[in-house]
Amino acid sequence: MEALVLIHTLRAALESGDFSVLSVRLADTHAADLAGALAEFSTAHQWQLLSCFGLSTQAEVFSYLPEEQQVELAHTVRRQDFTAVIRQMSSDERADLFNKLSDAQKQALLPALAQAERDDILSLSSYSEGTAGAIMSSDYAMLSPDLTVTQAIEVLRNEAPDKETIYLSYVVDQDRILIGALSLRELILAPTHALVDDVMKHDPIHVKVDTEQEEVASLVAKYDLIAIPVVNAQGQLVGIVTHDDAMDVAAAEATEDFHKTATIGKLEGSVKDAKISLLYRKRVVWLVVLVFGNIFSGAGLAAFEQIISQHIALLFFLPLLIASSGNAGAQSGTLMVRALATGDIKLRHWGKMLGKEVLVAGLLGLTMALAVYALGYWRGGLDIALVVAGTMLIVVLVGSLVGLSLPFLLSRFGMDPATASGPLITSIADVAGVVIYFSIASWYLPTLL
Amino acid sequence: MEALVLIHTLRAALESGDFSVLSVRLADTHAADLAGALAEFSTAHQWQLLSCFGLSTQAEVFSYLPEEQQVELAHTVRRQDFTAVIRQMSSDERADLFNKLSDAQKQALLPALAQAERDDILSLSSYSEGTAGAIMSSDYAMLSPDLTVTQAIEVLRNEAPDKETIYLSYVVDQDRILIGALSLRELILAPTHALVDDVMKHDPIHVKVDTEQEEVASLVAKYDLIAIPVVNAQGQLVGIVTHDDAMDVAAAEATEDFHKTATIGKLEGSVKDAKISLLYRKRVVWLVVLVFGNIFSGAGLAAFEQIISQHIALLFFLPLLIASSGNAGAQSGTLMVRALATGDIKLRHWGKMLGKEVLVAGLLGLTMALAVYALGYWRGGLDIALVVAGTMLIVVLVGSLVGLSLPFLLSRFGMDPATASGPLITSIADVAGVVIYFSIASWYLPTLL
Repeated sequence: MEALVLIHTLRAALESGDFSVLSVRLADTHAADLAGALAEFSTAHQWQLLSCFGLSTQAEVFSYLPEEQQVELAHTVRRQDFTAVIRQMSSDERADLFNKLSDAQKQALLPALAQAERDDILSLSSYSEGTAGAIMSSDYAMLSPDLTVTQAIEVLRNEAPDKETIYLSYVVDQDRILIGALSLRELILAPTHALVDDVMKHDPIHVKVDTEQEEVASLVAKYDLIAIPVVNAQGQLVGIVTHDDAMDVAAAEATEDFHKTATIGKLEGSVKDAKISLLYRKRVVWLVVLVFGNIFSGAGLAAFEQIISQHIALLFFLPLLIASSGNAGAQSGTLMVRALATGDIKLRHWGKMLGKEVLVAGLLGLTMALAVYALGYWRGGLDIALVVAGTMLIVVLVGSLVGLSLPFLLSRFGMDPATASGPLITSIADVAGVVIYFSIASWYLPTLL
Repeated sequence: MEALVLIHTLRAALESGDFSVLSVRLADTHAADLAGALAEFSTAHQWQLLSCFGLSTQAEVFSYLPEEQQVELAHTVRRQDFTAVIRQMSSDERADLFNKLSDAQKQALLPALAQAERDDILSLSSYSEGTAGAIMSSDYAMLSPDLTVTQAIEVLRNEAPDKETIYLSYVVDQDRILIGALSLRELILAPTHALVDDVMKHDPIHVKVDTEQEEVASLVAKYDLIAIPVVNAQGQLVGIVTHDDAMDVAAAEATEDFHKTATIGKLEGSVKDAKISLLYRKRVVWLVVLVFGNIFSGAGLAAFEQIISQHIALLFFLPLLIASSGNAGAQSGTLMVRALATGDIKLRHWGKMLGKEVLVAGLLGLTMALAVYALGYWRGGLDIALVVAGTMLIVVLVGSLVGLSLPFLLSRFGMDPATASGPLITSIADVAGVVIYFSIASWYLPTLL
């Protein structure tokens, strides 16, 4: 159903007060679409509409609502209704929501839950943000190695309604140590009397609770997994991260890197709905830092005041030269930042990449030097043309090599290479450009006394 | 098994000539890891090692090799061996490879295949790059609506070995029109005598063959799908795109956008292995275009030569002012480019975002103006301080608003907003910065005759 039709249907139900048709008419509507439409209504109306659906649909739709709206609903809805919904939510969504609640809400919520649910929420919400533990779900299917295939399928059938996925199940020993993995496809194809132990994959690909979420997502992508198991320090199975959560993580990490390359601080949630004060705070820091970085360029210009006032024609080429250096640097920097993020390039490839970059940047510099030589000749004669072309070759090389090396350097010292952003490289290239340009000019051009 | 241990094991087998242990010792090694290790060997050795495994493993490992190596192997391996492998590959991988082969190879390959395989390859390889058709697989599980649940499960069990996924099956009518979707979980939980028609979801989320691959990936992410069905213009089911391919597409699209924001042309495959000439070609175009863009800044400076030589102290602040304008623009531009790509922001939100940006950029401009006021006062007295601070406020506003608007404008005219890259915005901000700065200076500062 189209988004607008959906909103209209919901509004009509609110106005007529007849909610009975909703659950039938919207039976095939995806929970994500329902949540998208609900997001347009006030909190009170959201709850009125949500409560027309079965509890499991309520929980599913609720999970797709933006986090701020979830928290707001948690404030308004009667505690017992809210508890019923939260019990139906998947364990990872529930723990995320719990982390956003106020202390008072947490204290009110916990006693209403069963012991097992309480323990689950408290344990899942205890992992630090950005790790496998913080994004994993505890609703995984677990098998013991001595089951027969028929018994295993029966276990999965019984557990299906409560698990994130039954398409991959994990085999643990009596100490809950992860020893194998088995897909439902393999189970279905295996002889019915075979043992799980005989058909499972041993030593499956897994991550630790403190593995970074970016690494988790990249393993899921590399091995084309539907889910990846998470173990604790003892090797015990404690959760899974499913493909859809891995995909969300990969997108969020890409967004964060995008923002970093433009010197924007970590910004969670929607840009559209972000508060003015938040956007200001995330942007102001590096802008001010870079102002002070650019003082060096200014100081460079001031130091060369004499040669500039004697050859004022040089000024014409200044923006062009320093911009070219910055642009070339932004190119090589961005290539490295992204390749390091996707794993295409590792730290140890720095030497190889540097060698290639010298050649590529040399060619780029020569091309650009030729272009500005013509321009320089036309505007200022042979001497200016030679100075400008020589400078162009050097600043494109310097800009490119700085752009290439900075991400490796940052990575080497445990910092995020994405911090080697365009603006940072541009600022460095600016300073270098000013100094190189006027140094060459001072050396080559005649000084008038 | 560790990558190095794996390579060592393979090398030992090559040296001893004893390949018999490989298929047993490496039974639990993931095909992606095997392919990663194989990539380190020569083509001849690759094939020697590959042929120790069963045909289905061969095909799977082969699919994980970089495309250039696949093509090279296709050149060297005996045609009948190669045909055997290609018949085992999944339909989408096979069609991708087919597209990379030379015409002679294509002609040699086709007659060796069965009619159905031939048709499948020719039809899949006919869709244009970047569309759902080009990335879909034709190995999907299809059910008819009048089967019982038991019958449906039996169908899936029989087809499981040849399908990309059996966890989602698609229901079609007698004309192959897509009418429903059904997960294996739902099948397992449904009463055994129910009909597929009664338990399936009607009107499932789907895409067309010509839907852009970026859109396909974002639907898979939005609805947390394991696979999404692809229909032709008549609504007939012709393929599926699975979650792992969708995740690869999302990563590739993010990489492309990253590169675009640094004015790098579309670059497929590894940056590490890219040829010098390719890197040069992908980078030179925009660098040269921007050189000519920056001539305007130079011309701006030249036009204000008089005021500059009279107040040479103004030069000190020039890099700082135009860099700040460019940086603020890169920030707002990047925020919009990424939010448009992820769907957080739509074209219609331009007005709302513009209003917010005026406030955010105003605050940023004021902060920066205060910072440079102090600097200006210290270096050049009150008049310079006022000119510099006023300029800063205006250029940060202008840069931010240009950065914000450009992606919307490009999008509006059907171009990729990512083209509104940092360097493009920076160049525009440079010109604007020069003109605004010296216009204010000319107007406010005394002219010495």
